[in-house]
Amino acid sequence: MAPRILHLNAFENFSPGNIASGMWRHPQDRSSEYKSVRYWTRLARDLEQAGFDAIFLADILGILDVYRGGPDEALRTASQVPINDPLTVVSAMAAVTERLGFAVTVSTSYTHPFMLARSLTSLDHLSDGRVGWNIGTSFLDSAARNLGAGEQIPHDRRYDRADEYLEVTHRLWELSWDEDAVKIDKVAGIYSDPSKVHPVRHHGEFFTVPDPFIAEPSPQRSPLLYQAGSSGRGQQFAAEHAEGVFVHGTRPEVLKPIVASIREKASLFGRAPDALKVFAVATIVTGETDEIAQAKYRNLVEYADYRGAMVQFAGPAGFDVDQIDPDVPLTDIDSNGAQFTAKFFASADPDRVWTLREVAKYMAVGGMGPTIVGSGATVADELERWAEVADLDGFNLAYAVRPGTFDDIIRYVTPELRRRGLLSAGEGPRTLREAIFGEGQTRLSPDHPHWKIQQ
Amino acid sequence: MAPRILHLNAFENFSPGNIASGMWRHPQDRSSEYKSVRYWTRLARDLEQAGFDAIFLADILGILDVYRGGPDEALRTASQVPINDPLTVVSAMAAVTERLGFAVTVSTSYTHPFMLARSLTSLDHLSDGRVGWNIGTSFLDSAARNLGAGEQIPHDRRYDRADEYLEVTHRLWELSWDEDAVKIDKVAGIYSDPSKVHPVRHHGEFFTVPDPFIAEPSPQRSPLLYQAGSSGRGQQFAAEHAEGVFVHGTRPEVLKPIVASIREKASLFGRAPDALKVFAVATIVTGETDEIAQAKYRNLVEYADYRGAMVQFAGPAGFDVDQIDPDVPLTDIDSNGAQFTAKFFASADPDRVWTLREVAKYMAVGGMGPTIVGSGATVADELERWAEVADLDGFNLAYAVRPGTFDDIIRYVTPELRRRGLLSAGEGPRTLREAIFGEGQTRLSPDHPHWKIQQ
Repeated sequence: MAPRILHLNAFENFSPGNIASGMWRHPQDRSSEYKSVRYWTRLARDLEQAGFDAIFLADILGILDVYRGGPDEALRTASQVPINDPLTVVSAMAAVTERLGFAVTVSTSYTHPFMLARSLTSLDHLSDGRVGWNIGTSFLDSAARNLGAGEQIPHDRRYDRADEYLEVTHRLWELSWDEDAVKIDKVAGIYSDPSKVHPVRHHGEFFTVPDPFIAEPSPQRSPLLYQAGSSGRGQQFAAEHAEGVFVHGTRPEVLKPIVASIREKASLFGRAPDALKVFAVATIVTGETDEIAQAKYRNLVEYADYRGAMVQFAGPAGFDVDQIDPDVPLTDIDSNGAQFTAKFFASADPDRVWTLREVAKYMAVGGMGPTIVGSGATVADELERWAEVADLDGFNLAYAVRPGTFDDIIRYVTPELRRRGLLSAGEGPRTLREAIFGEGQTRLSPDHPHWKIQQ
Repeated sequence: MAPRILHLNAFENFSPGNIASGMWRHPQDRSSEYKSVRYWTRLARDLEQAGFDAIFLADILGILDVYRGGPDEALRTASQVPINDPLTVVSAMAAVTERLGFAVTVSTSYTHPFMLARSLTSLDHLSDGRVGWNIGTSFLDSAARNLGAGEQIPHDRRYDRADEYLEVTHRLWELSWDEDAVKIDKVAGIYSDPSKVHPVRHHGEFFTVPDPFIAEPSPQRSPLLYQAGSSGRGQQFAAEHAEGVFVHGTRPEVLKPIVASIREKASLFGRAPDALKVFAVATIVTGETDEIAQAKYRNLVEYADYRGAMVQFAGPAGFDVDQIDPDVPLTDIDSNGAQFTAKFFASADPDRVWTLREVAKYMAVGGMGPTIVGSGATVADELERWAEVADLDGFNLAYAVRPGTFDDIIRYVTPELRRRGLLSAGEGPRTLREAIFGEGQTRLSPDHPHWKIQQ
C-alpha cells in the first residue's frame, strides 16, 4: 500500500498575531512585517518550493474584546488585532507561484453572496484555479456591533442562513454559465453567448438573486470549500458543504472519534469516505536534532503570554475568564464560566484537568492544537502517527515565530517528508482541488451534495 | 512659469470590455487575457516605467440590461460583462511596482464602510501608500435587484447615505488610531497602546460603528479620494469629498465651465483652488506620424459596434433606446427617450446635434470622451491645449485595443511629454497622494472638509 499523503497548509493570518499569543515578543520574530507585500510573496514562494499545498488565511471581523471587558488586552497583546483583509493579499502571492493554493476565510454574515462569489471567482481566475474558501459564519458580538447587524443572529439560525448562502453561490458558480458560454468569436461579434448564460432565479428566505452571474466561470468554478465547525450543527454543515475540514485536539486519540463522526455524517449525504479531507491544527518546533528542538521549545515558552491566551480564549467563548483563579483546576471552581471552560478543554483532551495557567502555557505556542517538537525525523514520525491514529489527511501548520517556524519546517521537516514519499508529488501548475484530490480533479466532485441544487 | 504637469491615469476595467464598444473584435485586441494575472503585472510595470501616475479600475455590479430589455446584447458585445472584482487584482500589481498608484472603484451602496475601510487600508499597506478609491454610488437597477436592496435608493438619498459613509470611513482611517499607537515594544509587551486607540462612536442615520478600527493606519490613512459625479448633487459631493474628479466632454471648451464650477463649489468648502485635481477621459490613437495614426483610427472605426454602444448608453440612462431611429437627429424625435438622449449628449457638446448612429460611432473608440489622433507630438500638443483651455490636471486615458493602445502611448506619447517636462518627475517609491500633490503630501490635506468631522 502506498503511504498516506500528508497535505500541508501553512496557517497564517494577515495580522501580527495569530494563535501563538505573545510570540511576537520573541527576538527572532518579524511578525510586524505582515503589512509588507514582500513578506507574503517570499513566504508563498518558499512554501511552494517546499511542497506545501496551500496557505490558509484566518480572519476575524471584530476585536476580541471579552477578556477584561474591552479591547485593551487584545490591542496590547496583538491578539489578532490589528488585522487586514485576507482577500486583498492573494493575487500578489498567486503572481509569484503556480502550485500553491490560497484558502481564505470569509464570513457568510457580512458580505452578500453575489459580491463574495465574484471576489472568489476573480481570485480563482488570477491564480489559475488555486483558491479555497474557508466558510466562516462569525461568532463575535464585536463584529455584529460594528457591521450593522446589531444583535447577533442566533447560532443555529446563522447556519440556516449559511446553508442558503451556499445555495446561492453554487447557483452562481456552477449553474449560471454553461461550459461553452464564452465564445470570443471576433467574426460573429459574440463574446458570450446569451443562450448559454442563465438567470439563477434564487428566491429564498434570506436572499433574492434573480439574474445571471456577472463573472465568467473560473478554472475551479466553486473554490475549494473548507470549514472549521466544531459544534454539532457545525459538523453537519461541514459534512454537507465542505471538501476540507479543520479539527483541533491535543492528542490524536482525542481526534479519532471526531474525525470518524465527521466522515460518518458526510456519508449520510451520499459522499465517499475520502470526499472530505480532514486537517488537524499543529505547531512544529524543529531543528537539527531533538535536543536543539527541545531547547528551542523551552526558549519559546518563556515568551508565553497569559493575557494574550486569555484574550483568545475568552473572545470566541463569549465570557470573561478574568474572574477565574489561574492556578486552581477548572473543575474545582464553582462558576458557570469555569465549568464552561473546563468542558471546552475536556473536548480537546478529556483525560486531563486543566488550570487556566496551564491552558495559557499550552496555547502560547500551539493554540488549541499540539506542539510537535523534535528533529525532522522525529516530527515526521509524529505527523505519520497522528495521521494514522486519527485518520487525518493533513495538517494546518501554525507558526510560533515568524517566519522562523516555517523556515525551520522547510529546512528540516518537508525534506524528510518528501524522502518518505509523504508529500503530494509532481511539478508545474495545478489547481488547488487537484493538489488535494489528485490530478484532473479541478471541479467539484460529482458526489458533492451541492449538485442536488437544480437550476 | 513651469509648465503644467499632466497626470496620466490608465483607464482600465477588470473585464474584456470597457467603454470602447466592439473593439475586442479587433484582430490585435487581446482583451480576453484580462483574467490572467500576467496581463496586469506586465501592464503595471509598463505604465510605471512610462511615467503614468496611476491605473484606474472602473467597476459595475450589475449587467447593463436596459437595451432591448435584458442582458443578451451586453453579453454578446462584452459591454462590461463578464466583470471581476477590481479590489482583488491590486496587490499583484503593487508587488511589481513602486511608484504607480491604483485607483479602485467601489460603491458605497453594497459594502459596509467598516469592511471597505479595512480592504482599502489593507491595499494601502501592501502598496506602501499607493491606493485610491473612486467613490461609486451605483446607478443600476440590475445591481440593486441582485444585491438585496430590492428597489434602488433614490438618487439624492444615495448621496446622503454616501456622505455618512465617508464620515464613517474618515473616523476609521483618521481618528481612531493615533500616530504613535503602534509601539511593537517587545520588552514591555505592548504591540498597540490601547490608550492611543479610540472608539469611533459613530451613531448615524444609516450606520452604527461604535468601536475602534480593526486595522492599523496605512501610509496614506485615507486612500486618495476620487469621484466621477456629473449631476449637480454629484458635483457637490465631489467638491466636498474628492481629491480627484473625472469629467467627460467632447471638446475642452465644453469642459471649461464644468471644471470652473467644480472648483468654485470646492472653494465654498474652504478648499484651495488646486486641492481638487480634475481629469478628463480621453482615448489616444497614435503612431510614428499623423498619417499612420489617422490610418489606425480609420481601421479602428470599422470595428465600432452600434449595439454595444447602445448597451453602454442605455444602461446608465435607464431606458431602452431601441425604439429610436438611429439616423434621425435626436432633437427631431418626439419621445421622452430621444429628448433625454439629446439633452445628455448636449451636455457633452452643446453645439452639436446627434443621431444615435453618430453617438455610437463616436463612443465606439473613446466612449464619452474625445479620441485624440496623431503622432506623439500632435497628441502632446492636443493634451496641452485641452489642459490649458479647460484647466485640467490630467487625463484618464482609455484604450481602444488592449494592450495595444497603451503600448502605443508608451512608445510615442509619454516620451514626448517627458521631453517637454510635462510628466511628474523623480524616481523611487512614492505614495499616490505624493504622485498627484507632490513630495511629502502623503496625508489628506489640512484644508480637506473631512477634518470638520470631530472624534
